[in-house]
Formats: sequence, structure tokens, C-alpha cells
Amino acid sequence: MSAARLIGVGPGDPELMTLKAIRVLADAGVIAHFAKAGNVSHARATAAQHIRADVIELPLHYPVTTELPTCNNGYREAICDFYDQSAAKIAAYLDSGLTVAVICEGDPLFYGSYMHLHARLAARFPAEIVAGVTGMSGCWSAAGTPIAQGDDVFTVLPATLPEDELARRLRGADAAVVMKVGRHLPKLRRALATSGRLARAIYVERGTMADAKMLPLADKADDDAPYFAVVLVPGWEERP
Amino acid sequence: MSAARLIGVGPGDPELMTLKAIRVLADAGVIAHFAKAGNVSHARATAAQHIRADVIELPLHYPVTTELPTCNNGYREAICDFYDQSAAKIAAYLDSGLTVAVICEGDPLFYGSYMHLHARLAARFPAEIVAGVTGMSGCWSAAGTPIAQGDDVFTVLPATLPEDELARRLRGADAAVVMKVGRHLPKLRRALATSGRLARAIYVERGTMADAKMLPLADKADDDAPYFAVVLVPGWEERP
Repeated sequence: MSAARLIGVGPGDPELMTLKAIRVLADAGVIAHFAKAGNVSHARATAAQHIRADVIELPLHYPVTTELPTCNNGYREAICDFYDQSAAKIAAYLDSGLTVAVICEGDPLFYGSYMHLHARLAARFPAEIVAGVTGMSGCWSAAGTPIAQGDDVFTVLPATLPEDELARRLRGADAAVVMKVGRHLPKLRRALATSGRLARAIYVERGTMADAKMLPLADKADDDAPYFAVVLVPGWEERP
Repeated sequence: MSAARLIGVGPGDPELMTLKAIRVLADAGVIAHFAKAGNVSHARATAAQHIRADVIELPLHYPVTTELPTCNNGYREAICDFYDQSAAKIAAYLDSGLTVAVICEGDPLFYGSYMHLHARLAARFPAEIVAGVTGMSGCWSAAGTPIAQGDDVFTVLPATLPEDELARRLRGADAAVVMKVGRHLPKLRRALATSGRLARAIYVERGTMADAKMLPLADKADDDAPYFAVVLVPGWEERP
């Protein structure tokens, strides 16, 4: 029986792809990838040199360009239809006997949209997951910043949380990564100050790309953070 | 100037090594790896096929076999001396002009002991970090379990925490990974029950090895969990 594969291609540097990702890509009859409408898939760009010229490519374009709260019913319906249709396209290829690889940035089951396909397909087709290097690992490695150690409590937070909740959670964690920074940067900065973590915070944009930007958050202006910027709050204060 | 490299070799499956890890290993004059006294390094076993026969190997054996609380002064001194001596050995090779690669399980800067070397060497020698697939990514991928999505708050907790703190933190997170399970399993099970997360919890041993063991925690006895077993608590309840 043909199989679906979810392949993590890592944080963006093509050299951070795993041997397994490359082997599974080479064996696939169909390669599917997500992108915003009108954009090239980041995962496809990362994996480009391992995509055979004769493979069938299935680009899946999100119906909306801005992520909205999931409580917005119009957004929910549009995105739900999109995942249903995408899963149906992949299922048709699988039914025809082809192996389909869905390529994903980072690690497929860690904050990936791809898991919505997995949920729709895993019950009907064998599925294999190829773990990948996460975007956040790429960021703290590029910054050369140990993030957590020993018995540290480590937390990943979306910057979309209310300011007081961000501050409370930052205070309660030894180490943290804050994602989806974008326009939430001024609020995040206040929450980091309230929780006593501002001095340690590191701002990172495009962590493993050639044009990566990383600096102490204290030195970063509030005016132009992109949605995918992250802030690292290293733990590991006590060290032998 | 010669350089120190910290290389993550991933969670144990040699195919989950990155192209960059393999290239940097091939270029190294010296390869250092940590192990418990009397044991083979797991990282070395994972990377074995990429270690040249003519490379200088520097095994670094921990002076103690059981991790003790860092408040124990005898342990702190022993481990501190060990890291000092290990860093000095590596520095001697770097001073002689050789490139030294330290291989690490998982991702080097995420709960690795190797960062204690990085802290001692980075100020004196150029250092490069090669991010790796974490052990926890290997576990949830092997289990086929999406772990976190969207605006989920994700937390990594050591099972060494007191029961009430484990329960409080599990209640406050959408998704969690609990590490260092071992003899703490009965306490962790109670904390998962108190926080309403027991039914979702998945027990994983040796996540990406051929003899991996994974099952609902509810079906796992409390009697024989190894230190490195983890428990996954998937978030991602609301999905389009």
C-alpha cells in the first residue's frame, strides 16, 4: 500500500536536512508543500536540490494570507475546507499507488499546519513521520546561546497571549522561546520587563538564513518585527 | 585559527543526522564524546559510520554515574573539575591547530551537558554549533503524535519536580513533555491524574531506536521506567 510521509526539512539551511528526509524525498512519487497564496513554499526552497525533476509536485496554497483567531468562524471554515481539499488531493494520489511526501519547515508535528493533513490521512493510509530540526533549535544554535539545562522548566509561548499572562508565564519558566512576535513586540517587551527577563532576552529573525538578524532585545526597536521573529529567553543561570 | 564545533547527532537513529553534522565530522581532526564511566557514548554509536578511522578520538568519561542534585557540593565539585579538565584537553588540541568536534545526542544547546564545555571554550576559540533533531522530536514522531499547534503553550518539565508543582504546571500548559521519568513515574502519574491529563499521556522509551517502546501511560506499570523515558502530553485539542 502506498504511504504518506510527513518530512521535516529543518529551519531553512539546506544542510540541516537529515539523511532520512533526503532518502524519503528521493523515493517519493509526489511532493506536496504548503505556501501562502502567491508565495513560494519555504520548505520547498530548503529542499530544492533534493527534488527530482520528474516528480509530481502538489503545491497547496492557503486560502487566507493572515492568520486569524480560531474563534473567527469564517476563518475556521475556509481553513477547514482547505485542509479537507488538500487531504483529498493527497488521498487520490495515494489511492493511485503513489507515495506522497509532504515537506514541512522545522519538525512536522511541532507547531506545523501539516499535522492537520496527518489527522485527516493517518487513519486511512500508512504514515511515516520524519522528525526535523525545529526552527527554534536553528535560532539558538545560530545565536550560540545555550537555552535550557538540567532541571530547567522550558516553555514555548505565543506572543499573542495577553500581557499579564505572558509576564506570569515568563516568571514561571526558567527558559522560554516566544513565537509569532511581529506586532506584539512592544507588549512582549513590557511582559519581559515585568518578569525580570528583559536583560537576557535575544531577538532573532530568520535564524538559520544567510541574512539572519540577532541582537539583545534591549537593542531592538519596536517598529518592524516580522510575524516569524522569535525571542529567546535563555535559562541555565546556575552552572557547574 | 582552529575551531571548536558542537555537533548534535539527533535522537539516536543515524539517519536523523543532518548533512551538516556529517560534513563537520568529516573535517574534524579530533572527535570528543561524553559517556558514563564504563559505557559507550550514545552519540558516538549514532555517528559511528561517519567517524574516520584516522581521526583522534577523545572520550570524556563522567566522574559519577548518577545525577545528583546540584545543591550537593561534592557532586558540584566533581562535575566542575571534570568539565574544567575536559575543556583543557580540548583547548590543548585547538591550540595545536586541530579542529575539534564534540558530538552530542539531540540538539547541543537543549538540555545537553556539552554546553558546559561551550561556556568554557567559546570565549577563547571560534565555535560553531550544529543544531540537531531533539530526542523529544524523535519520540513524538515515532509515536505519530502531533504535540503542539497554533497558540498552544508547550512546556518541558523534569519529573524531578514536586508532585503539586508538576500538577500545577501540567494544568497550565496545553502540551507538555516530561523528562527524566525513571523512579518518578508513580508521582508523575498522580500529577497527570490531578491535572486531568492522564488519559492523553503517552509513555515513550528509546523513542527512535529499533527497540522503542511506546504506549498509553494508563497501560504502563509503575515498576520499571528508565531514567531517560519521557511522557508526552499532546496539546492540540481544538483543530480545524
